[in-house]
Amino acid sequence: MSIRFAVLGAGRIGQVHAKAVSSVNGATLVAIADPVAAAAHHIRDTYGCDIRSIDMILTSDDVDAVIICTPTDTHADLIERFIKAGKAVFCEKPVDLDVARARKVVDTVVAENGLLMVGFQRRFDPDFMALKQAIDEGVIGEVEMVTLTSRDPGAPPVDYIKRSGGIFRDMTIHDFDVARWLLGEEVTSVQAAASVLTDPAIKELGDYDSVNVILMTASGKQCTINNTRRATYGYDQRIEVHGSKGSVSAENHRESRIEIANGAGYTRPPLLNFFMSRYTAAYANEIASFVDAIANGTPTKTTGMDGLKALELADAALKSAQTGQAVSLA
Amino acid sequence: MSIRFAVLGAGRIGQVHAKAVSSVNGATLVAIADPVAAAAHHIRDTYGCDIRSIDMILTSDDVDAVIICTPTDTHADLIERFIKAGKAVFCEKPVDLDVARARKVVDTVVAENGLLMVGFQRRFDPDFMALKQAIDEGVIGEVEMVTLTSRDPGAPPVDYIKRSGGIFRDMTIHDFDVARWLLGEEVTSVQAAASVLTDPAIKELGDYDSVNVILMTASGKQCTINNTRRATYGYDQRIEVHGSKGSVSAENHRESRIEIANGAGYTRPPLLNFFMSRYTAAYANEIASFVDAIANGTPTKTTGMDGLKALELADAALKSAQTGQAVSLA
Amino acid sequence: MSIRFAVLGAGRIGQVHAKAVSSVNGATLVAIADPVAAAAHHIRDTYGCDIRSIDMILTSDDVDAVIICTPTDTHADLIERFIKAGKAVFCEKPVDLDVARARKVVDTVVAENGLLMVGFQRRFDPDFMALKQAIDEGVIGEVEMVTLTSRDPGAPPVDYIKRSGGIFRDMTIHDFDVARWLLGEEVTSVQAAASVLTDPAIKELGDYDSVNVILMTASGKQCTINNTRRATYGYDQRIEVHGSKGSVSAENHRESRIEIANGAGYTRPPLLNFFMSRYTAAYANEIASFVDAIANGTPTKTTGMDGLKALELADAALKSAQTGQAVSLA
Amino acid sequence: MSIRFAVLGAGRIGQVHAKAVSSVNGATLVAIADPVAAAAHHIRDTYGCDIRSIDMILTSDDVDAVIICTPTDTHADLIERFIKAGKAVFCEKPVDLDVARARKVVDTVVAENGLLMVGFQRRFDPDFMALKQAIDEGVIGEVEMVTLTSRDPGAPPVDYIKRSGGIFRDMTIHDFDVARWLLGEEVTSVQAAASVLTDPAIKELGDYDSVNVILMTASGKQCTINNTRRATYGYDQRIEVHGSKGSVSAENHRESRIEIANGAGYTRPPLLNFFMSRYTAAYANEIASFVDAIANGTPTKTTGMDGLKALELADAALKSAQTGQAVSLA
Repeated sequence: MSIRFAVLGAGRIGQVHAKAVSSVNGATLVAIADPVAAAAHHIRDTYGCDIRSIDMILTSDDVDAVIICTPTDTHADLIERFIKAGKAVFCEKPVDLDVARARKVVDTVVAENGLLMVGFQRRFDPDFMALKQAIDEGVIGEVEMVTLTSRDPGAPPVDYIKRSGGIFRDMTIHDFDVARWLLGEEVTSVQAAASVLTDPAIKELGDYDSVNVILMTASGKQCTINNTRRATYGYDQRIEVHGSKGSVSAENHRESRIEIANGAGYTRPPLLNFFMSRYTAAYANEIASFVDAIANGTPTKTTGMDGLKALELADAALKSAQTGQAVSLA
Repeated sequence: MSIRFAVLGAGRIGQVHAKAVSSVNGATLVAIADPVAAAAHHIRDTYGCDIRSIDMILTSDDVDAVIICTPTDTHADLIERFIKAGKAVFCEKPVDLDVARARKVVDTVVAENGLLMVGFQRRFDPDFMALKQAIDEGVIGEVEMVTLTSRDPGAPPVDYIKRSGGIFRDMTIHDFDVARWLLGEEVTSVQAAASVLTDPAIKELGDYDSVNVILMTASGKQCTINNTRRATYGYDQRIEVHGSKGSVSAENHRESRIEIANGAGYTRPPLLNFFMSRYTAAYANEIASFVDAIANGTPTKTTGMDGLKALELADAALKSAQTGQAVSLA
Repeated sequence: MSIRFAVLGAGRIGQVHAKAVSSVNGATLVAIADPVAAAAHHIRDTYGCDIRSIDMILTSDDVDAVIICTPTDTHADLIERFIKAGKAVFCEKPVDLDVARARKVVDTVVAENGLLMVGFQRRFDPDFMALKQAIDEGVIGEVEMVTLTSRDPGAPPVDYIKRSGGIFRDMTIHDFDVARWLLGEEVTSVQAAASVLTDPAIKELGDYDSVNVILMTASGKQCTINNTRRATYGYDQRIEVHGSKGSVSAENHRESRIEIANGAGYTRPPLLNFFMSRYTAAYANEIASFVDAIANGTPTKTTGMDGLKALELADAALKSAQTGQAVSLA
Repeated sequence: MSIRFAVLGAGRIGQVHAKAVSSVNGATLVAIADPVAAAAHHIRDTYGCDIRSIDMILTSDDVDAVIICTPTDTHADLIERFIKAGKAVFCEKPVDLDVARARKVVDTVVAENGLLMVGFQRRFDPDFMALKQAIDEGVIGEVEMVTLTSRDPGAPPVDYIKRSGGIFRDMTIHDFDVARWLLGEEVTSVQAAASVLTDPAIKELGDYDSVNVILMTASGKQCTINNTRRATYGYDQRIEVHGSKGSVSAENHRESRIEIANGAGYTRPPLLNFFMSRYTAAYANEIASFVDAIANGTPTKTTGMDGLKALELADAALKSAQTGQAVSLA
């Protein structure tokens, strides 16, 4: 009784998910859809699935679930169509760049009693899961301060940035989700500072490349997020959670575990440089979790509401960075 | 031609400085002043100096310099009196809890052409000096983001907190000074969040125990400061500076360099638990630097103006935490 | 043009290799052989291959290569039979516990112009490969001293030890191979010390659980090996190579990359506790390397001669431990 | 009631001890002796002591204890003379390069009921003391394997090596003492391998620069020692002790605690490069321990017998390296 999948979009993240589906127990890849023939062929040839159009998949009886890896501006419509067609839906973040539109999607999913999972893969990283488990087991007592450091090796192309919704909605959104996950309380106040330090082209687009955010909850728990689009030493992904009884942190992933010592000192390799290699295990765990939810009829671990909440925090942070004022969330 | 010192105040920080004076080349401890006889006797007996009143020291021809370790509310007056008496003055932070009063002190020092050093010992910590040197040598390129983590093992007594001026002026003030030192530009905007998470008594005093601050300079460089009054694992003092070409960080000091491995994992000892043991070398270097400035007629490395600027940042942070608004500094 | 494989033996290491064959590009699992039906069925059902007897596989035209995962005392015969049948052969270490028998196998492979790879998976571990690459690139200059630390979490069952050939042939043999690989010269002298510290039952069998070995090459390069059958903190696998220009080391693999700080100190998780999880990537790389050798007609990276040489070192170490004398190898 | 000291020999180690005596509570530096006037003057001027000849010190009523920092070939005679004169004696290692002569010294000390401390400063290093304390508290259970890594940054001058007694008596002797301290049992068997890898001049002297040693006790505990005269990354001093319940290790001391991250990786500074800076605290603790022993009439923590035992192990190691045979000690 394997769950039968179609993947919409055969780009690089589509390939990651196609591979995950193929290797997870209890899942089968049935179809791939992509207007770019070569991309679709590659997945078909690698995993032995059909190529179908999105419309065909919508009416395919042999497809139980879809994974949406198409451009962001198609997400909301596709989620609604497939949820209404009775398919389980996994969608890469964000649901939509517009909060109102995203909220409507979430409402639709509820109305249709559908199953939607939003792709926040960091929650499925084995190290971050171990960190969360330590917190849940009470090892550090009550959570008080969360410190998130997320730095990209380099900025994406200008064309990508134009359509990205800006750094808060594109990059920090992952940290907003992690913050909510770890704080265990909703955020009630957002302060943010933002500037452009790496590339004037980003400034011309009205976006930022360097941001710091402070989140506060009703009980006074705090979280800081540090983002930059340029880290020469690789893809920097760190979490530290400080609590009443102690702290727990998760360290980065390096290219290898060797160290070289000589007159210049002791040198370990730089970090993995790409989010796909850094989060390989997380992407596989994420799809396995989605398969579990479908198979067992349980809620997904990252819901449409999680996607919406993270987006609201992104909007609040942008507003705070622009006005200098803390933005309150109900 | 040794510089002849008197230490005002024989409390724990007075003892630290008395020891430093006694061990630094080119300095001699001549006198100690303290209304508590036992404390003064202890220093006299340990280092072989006189016991004198503050008024006597003021007119002592055999005293070239004083180190002010008396309660905070006496600092401003004592600095002015000793500067006018022609003595070189080292004063523990803060110059005063009131910005206007501190500014007047700085003006007096300038008018009298006096030599004042304010005790920001972290600039003299060997590791932080090595970090600063790496920055100055261009190792990380242009400084972009500074991250300061300063956590006390536990809150001071309530009586101390009452007279402390609050966490920003008492604890974060050190981080404000380090931030200015490392950013290399004056801060133009301050955002802060603050809450009470460790002890309701602190809330009753109108103070905070958990704060996060974002500083921004005119060119967009940013700094975050994370403070809490409770860290179960010791006195946590970390710096990380991110730049255009790389990052540099300084790690904590542990009780020892051993590690124990067993079924529970790999355990290294907690951090040194007290600012005096953590900054032993920094305190000695600080006094040596003061002696150098006196002997060579050069400016001190941490001036009255540094003390004033840090205090202004503390006031701005407090205001931001209370109002939610970013506070601009000219 | 996929290489078609049969796996002989469906025990735990057989399962590892079956999985590797199934996931490596250019390889196909055709058949599994095991007298235990349940074990064979499990692999058949998981990977969709046939179940065949060893004799059937020997004459199967649709099998290009076999992986021998049967008990040690069957290795030599099976290698010879399959080499003579024209199959490429991968065999788990050791070729045989008897040097003379192993040498005869190596001679047979040469006479038949066969392709034999012996399973020394450590050479294929990504970290150790990175370490070796650094050496080959001259990063540490001339290799002078190799230090190998290999400690098992716990001793195998007494029944296993009885048939194992003793700690030098069963456990240290991996280190002997790594030593030869890293020294880049053949060993000419072996000194060893051995004792029983963890379990008297091991002493009764005439075996050891705690050994140290010193290897020396003709040019004076040295290697030490430290083995014990009990490490409470997990499966300890470290390499350090000291050279004329510097050192390079490879660190252990932990259960996760988190660290917990509290009053007891800073604790990271224990090491992965099992050779299969520690060397998952190595096992996959090893089979990929074998497939490459077959496909390209190139020699295997670990040959029958490597298996023989490691066995000779094991015999020499045992003799040295028993007599206290250094044992010379031609 | 301060213990009054004279230091014999004003070379670099004499200066270290003169400084230690001057700073330790309960000790006073009374006199320095050295045929080189400038060296003696330096210590006199720095610490305000007399300059006296060795013969004068021998009969000085105001000297309770001497610290012998003269050339090795004078140690034995000086110890005997000062012990007979009723002075407490601290002597730098070795007592003598000849075991028989050293044994005679030990006998004399016993016969005279004298107090002799031999300078094995590593036992007084704060980290190694913390490691030893962990062992004594049972944290790792029963000690099974000790691993000592001691590597000098560079070889001493050829003239020094000529008179040094060879690497085992000059360099490894410290490790032999540490081994005995940590094993908690006397060594009964020594195996060693030695070669010359860094400088042919060392070979011409009949000495070695690269050695590995295995020590075994009657109960089967083992210790390995790895020495080389060249480590490009600094003065490498590591200890690891493996026990029935876990392991404990002590890590190196770096020039500072900073780390730089960039495209080349993460780099920490090299190690402290000189035994005096590495063991600054150990030298001070050592003299404080000697002062305690004198003041309290208790045995010294490193005795003449410790010096003798370490020398016997050095001789055994040399013999084993030359013959290839394990050398037994009664």
